[in-house]
Amino acid sequence: MEARYTLVLLRHGESHYTQKNLFCGFGNDADLSDIGVREAALAGQRILKAGLEFDLAFTSVLKRAVKTLFLVQETLDCHWLPVVRTWRLNERHYGDLQGLSKTETAKKYGEAQVKTWRRSYDVRPPVLDKKDPRFCSSMAPYRDLDPSIIPVCESLKDTMERMLPFWHDEIAPKIKTGKRVLIIAHGNSLRGLMKYLKRLSDEEITKLEIPQAIPLVLELSENLQPIRDYYLASEEEVKTAKAKVGVKDNVK
Amino acid sequence: MEARYTLVLLRHGESHYTQKNLFCGFGNDADLSDIGVREAALAGQRILKAGLEFDLAFTSVLKRAVKTLFLVQETLDCHWLPVVRTWRLNERHYGDLQGLSKTETAKKYGEAQVKTWRRSYDVRPPVLDKKDPRFCSSMAPYRDLDPSIIPVCESLKDTMERMLPFWHDEIAPKIKTGKRVLIIAHGNSLRGLMKYLKRLSDEEITKLEIPQAIPLVLELSENLQPIRDYYLASEEEVKTAKAKVGVKDNVK
Repeated sequence: MEARYTLVLLRHGESHYTQKNLFCGFGNDADLSDIGVREAALAGQRILKAGLEFDLAFTSVLKRAVKTLFLVQETLDCHWLPVVRTWRLNERHYGDLQGLSKTETAKKYGEAQVKTWRRSYDVRPPVLDKKDPRFCSSMAPYRDLDPSIIPVCESLKDTMERMLPFWHDEIAPKIKTGKRVLIIAHGNSLRGLMKYLKRLSDEEITKLEIPQAIPLVLELSENLQPIRDYYLASEEEVKTAKAKVGVKDNVK
Repeated sequence: MEARYTLVLLRHGESHYTQKNLFCGFGNDADLSDIGVREAALAGQRILKAGLEFDLAFTSVLKRAVKTLFLVQETLDCHWLPVVRTWRLNERHYGDLQGLSKTETAKKYGEAQVKTWRRSYDVRPPVLDKKDPRFCSSMAPYRDLDPSIIPVCESLKDTMERMLPFWHDEIAPKIKTGKRVLIIAHGNSLRGLMKYLKRLSDEEITKLEIPQAIPLVLELSENLQPIRDYYLASEEEVKTAKAKVGVKDNVK
């Protein structure tokens, strides 16, 4: 198959939550750390060096992704680039684990359980009570949504189910018209997209780790099937970046 | 008439071109100066203090406006806010004067002529040759446009004629559905909008100066007629800011 389109995916840079090793999901609007700011600019440099250009960018409504995109735009000098934000590209909802320490949670529920919650395909974390102040319905980015579709906990499967309609309706058609697309999102919304595009099995996806702030280039066929995918970084850099965010014994 | 909607207009902060007193128009993608960056953040503080919130923002494809918006979003902590960029909100096209020194131009053509070019309603500056490297057709933000609609010089009337279709088709309907809109644009695209909304005469508009980085609040009737408009700053601050960018004997 011949490559027809190029799509670039980028997971946001380090946030204050990553730094503190907290569950940072759908409803945590964590800011980028100083390291994350530098990582975002470096991601822009990697894209610049690769000579890639874009016509359109998509991101979530979460600050860590939006800011990463802005910093990439600064580096590429393409402030004019149209940007579409959507909650459907947000990070997975960690339910009642949201905002908790990963270490504390592992102590309470055991390493194996936490690993399952973090990397399994269809196991949901504990549900967040809709009366909990962490429930997103009254937060500004979600106030026009029917509260019944706002997540209270998601497996990766759930994340894919709310993300893919946006891919099919808004992103894929744009790529097919020849628009060169950049998507800046989150570990799990991007893992879900990779599972779908590469037709990975439920088992294979548990092993896929996407590092922060390293551009992932997908060369796609006419039907948007990935022909090649590669990071804009050395193997060593990718390995180090994966180890930083990975579930320890699970890093690919 | 009763006020039904609130619209906020903001001219971008100081750019490197303003600093150097150059004609900075449609095709000059000047960056914000350090002062401009601080002015943008301060504009955000003024909006925050006034307790205004937004559902939707519009801006041009020019860096000085896009960055001003991003800095306002940082201050308001609303990175999630949908942003629509359009070349139709760009600054007026100064034709062959683009990028030239205002002082040098005044020496060459006389103060009166420069004043006419800068503030008259329907006098066009000298035309930019389409073979000139400053012609925008090959620049990234405009590459999908039919070159015949890309300006080569504009009077304020011309700027209004290319800006208003976007107002009518994209902005006004959103305001009428209740969306609280923020527009971050340029001296002349905003003057044009004020002329239209307030039904100012061709003479009155020559006297209207919009200062940089001071939010201008418009309270609109059901039919989007301005009932009141005021700056989120003291009279003294507005006067000083107007004097900074104004055509000297013409400041309102």
